[in-house]
Amino acid sequence: MSQYWSPAVRELTPYVPGEQTRERVIKLNTNENPYPPAPGVGEVLRDYATDHLRLYPDPTSAALRDALAETLQVKSSQVFVGNGSDEVLAFAFQAFFCHQAPLDVPAITYSFYPVYANLYGVALRKHPLTGNWEVDIDALAANPERSGVIFANPNAPTGHAHSLMTIEALLKRVTDRVVLVDEAYVDFGAESAVTLIDRYPNLLVTGTFSKSRSLAGLRLGYAVGSEELIDGLLRVKDSFNSYPVDSLASLVGIAALKDVEHFEACRERVITTRERTRQRLETLGFEVLPSKANFLLAQHPDYAGAQLFASLRERGILIRHFNTTELNNFLRITIGTDDEMDSLIEALETICG
Amino acid sequence: MSQYWSPAVRELTPYVPGEQTRERVIKLNTNENPYPPAPGVGEVLRDYATDHLRLYPDPTSAALRDALAETLQVKSSQVFVGNGSDEVLAFAFQAFFCHQAPLDVPAITYSFYPVYANLYGVALRKHPLTGNWEVDIDALAANPERSGVIFANPNAPTGHAHSLMTIEALLKRVTDRVVLVDEAYVDFGAESAVTLIDRYPNLLVTGTFSKSRSLAGLRLGYAVGSEELIDGLLRVKDSFNSYPVDSLASLVGIAALKDVEHFEACRERVITTRERTRQRLETLGFEVLPSKANFLLAQHPDYAGAQLFASLRERGILIRHFNTTELNNFLRITIGTDDEMDSLIEALETICG
Repeated sequence: MSQYWSPAVRELTPYVPGEQTRERVIKLNTNENPYPPAPGVGEVLRDYATDHLRLYPDPTSAALRDALAETLQVKSSQVFVGNGSDEVLAFAFQAFFCHQAPLDVPAITYSFYPVYANLYGVALRKHPLTGNWEVDIDALAANPERSGVIFANPNAPTGHAHSLMTIEALLKRVTDRVVLVDEAYVDFGAESAVTLIDRYPNLLVTGTFSKSRSLAGLRLGYAVGSEELIDGLLRVKDSFNSYPVDSLASLVGIAALKDVEHFEACRERVITTRERTRQRLETLGFEVLPSKANFLLAQHPDYAGAQLFASLRERGILIRHFNTTELNNFLRITIGTDDEMDSLIEALETICG
Repeated sequence: MSQYWSPAVRELTPYVPGEQTRERVIKLNTNENPYPPAPGVGEVLRDYATDHLRLYPDPTSAALRDALAETLQVKSSQVFVGNGSDEVLAFAFQAFFCHQAPLDVPAITYSFYPVYANLYGVALRKHPLTGNWEVDIDALAANPERSGVIFANPNAPTGHAHSLMTIEALLKRVTDRVVLVDEAYVDFGAESAVTLIDRYPNLLVTGTFSKSRSLAGLRLGYAVGSEELIDGLLRVKDSFNSYPVDSLASLVGIAALKDVEHFEACRERVITTRERTRQRLETLGFEVLPSKANFLLAQHPDYAGAQLFASLRERGILIRHFNTTELNNFLRITIGTDDEMDSLIEALETICG
């Protein structure tokens, strides 16, 4: 605590990301993709004329937005890009959720949302998940006074995804404020709400290159929505940093978008490995929540989550354990390669055997 | 204007950066370096193992902070890095300047400061420059109630730099709040206040790789100060984006820092060309403010700034013109290569001839 800090900053509780380690471990703790980015990414870097780095980037990131618009089949004016979807989410909180009423949010979801809320002074109204560990869409829409609605679909860290029909039912009920659907994990088996943006001007869908495009190290995220929502994000961005997306990141992102074949192959491998891992965990006695993401949330009736986390860590396998009342017994396991998941299962066989 | 925007966001007046164009022009409008980044930058990109991009960056950017600490001869714990110094400045406004009293700022300085103030609800107390177009240090320190002090040294767009002794005199008077010295242009001839951070725990110095390191396209900025100030910035950063600096940018930044010879050669060339250009502008009848930066602010008694700007633009030479009462007659001219400055002078000879 320092006398020089702004009063509100003294009250912040920052987000703590999963551990990044240089040790040689099997890293299944931050939902990274086990497969490399598209080969075109390497070509971009090898062929890059570094003299170009002396110039500022295009502040509008037009080329990257055009490429995303083509991939997502929307207009470029409906696309916003930022330095990771974390930055895009932060801008969205400031652009849309700073009203008097509270923001409706699931009680269990991406744990960065309460951090943003704290940073921007947004009150939260948290709604418990249903008995099936699903986001309670009815509850999210139930209160007439709100600053907005936010949830992840698939949700984190549960992996459950609602259908497009369910999301559209929510949009029919919430028309006065922004509904933000965070689709960081959508490419691993869920339906995207991007197809709804033309009909619902208050729908903002966010996405990332970190998961299905294997570019977590590059920091590229985006939002898709009506032009008036994109304009709101631009107002905040242009009051914060004229060029949040650097010149290299734009080109690398475009190269990743172009390689549809690589993208499809990697996500299918992750999905196949996920289902195989789920079955094997169930065989070991785990309860595993059905997942449309690149991770599984699992708990064992006989072993505490913290204990399994520690035992796996001793064996060089990093997974994520959340120290909260509801999730304390669970493990969140990122889907790695088949070999990595074999090592995980073998370790768990030893620990639980 | 949209019904979905937060009320405060409706009131924003975003920053407008200098034009980025794809046309073939002589670009002297955004204070970019005319020389390429260090050759090691190209090697980093060519040799980069792209598989590494699938992993998140180190959230603490330890390697880059270590390299900066070595270059600046401070401790790594006294260094903060961000996605361009614009982001670092935004974090600093939120971390340190959100108090009830106004922020003391020169009336003419980097025009992004009022934009940040608006974004974070910080009131400004603006102090006119002295008759010599210098930042009025006495005025900045004169009021007992303040949220802080911010100015650029060298100042933008005037280019004037105060001595370390003058800055220390300010620090002796302002001890209750943060004094932020923005040193974006310091490497072109001014003294850095980084040497004072051990004695003044409320001094924060910001810097950038965009100018003297020729890396505007990469978006790398930093702040140097006491550990308690760095901790304040980290609280905001960790509530906004766990990884604002991407993996490639870190490595490229380190490569740029390592090449001291290239750095020294480029900045000396810019300084030499600046002084040569200043003399030639004066010969043409311009009043040119003395500059310690990589740009010159100049006005002609017989030609309006807007007119010269337009005439140069017609001839394919982009400079910056500020449409404000005080600066309306001035041109801000970035220092390019000798050839580029020759073209500028020739064009002005024709226009003013």
